Amino acid sequence: MLADDMLGQGREGTDLAQYVAAFDAMRAEGGNLLIVGELAGDVVATYQLTFISGLSLKATRRAQIESVRIAAPFRGRGLGAAMFADAEARARAAGCGLLQLTTNRARERAQSFYEGLGYTPSHIGFKKPL
Amino acid sequence: MLADDMLGQGREGTDLAQYVAAFDAMRAEGGNLLIVGELAGDVVATYQLTFISGLSLKATRRAQIESVRIAAPFRGRGLGAAMFADAEARARAAGCGLLQLTTNRARERAQSFYEGLGYTPSHIGFKKPL
Repeated sequence: MLADDMLGQGREGTDLAQYVAAFDAMRAEGGNLLIVGELAGDVVATYQLTFISGLSLKATRRAQIESVRIAAPFRGRGLGAAMFADAEARARAAGCGLLQLTTNRARERAQSFYEGLGYTPSHIGFKKPL
Repeated sequence: MLADDMLGQGREGTDLAQYVAAFDAMRAEGGNLLIVGELAGDVVATYQLTFISGLSLKATRRAQIESVRIAAPFRGRGLGAAMFADAEARARAAGCGLLQLTTNRARERAQSFYEGLGYTPSHIGFKKPL
């Protein structure tokens, strides 16, 4: 799903070892979850949820979503909204008072989707390769 | 510094207990650092740096910056650039291939500052209180 994506198709690889190593690293970090959605035994959706404590906003703990993907044949069926409901429930259970994410400006449909779920596009997301 | 800020002055509190609890939580999480800059014994700058492993971008580990603040009397002296050089060095040392942050749209000077350091405003940052 990461590779079968408008932006991901040019930037993912076929060497699985690096992904397995990252999966182990996520597990070791704690509070860094990879959630998959199954339908009749097939993995059809995935997202990453990370809990980050911090001092800002009266020491509000944040939950952050990355890498939201739905398998192409299963888009438009409400799986995205179901994933976000799941993420919000997990974030509340972990004591988070804020859910945050960034989306590439090129993902125009994603932007209206997030606004429809009550997310405010208040910030600009900057990235720099190291 | 969090309270003495154009956005923070209305949203921070004076009850220190909640901040101390969050500080302990940050320490427990690991890979979630609060960096302070000192000048002649005074704390004059701070930022939060979090390392997040994940599967996207060929399993690139990311570093994320939050809560960048410089004490008012010390702005305009290059401390911001020094903090970002420090953050990038720490991120590389932790095996991160990407540094990311979001900034509120209202922080216009911050935006040109980040662009000047080589950060690309490729994303839109969404937030939702829980």
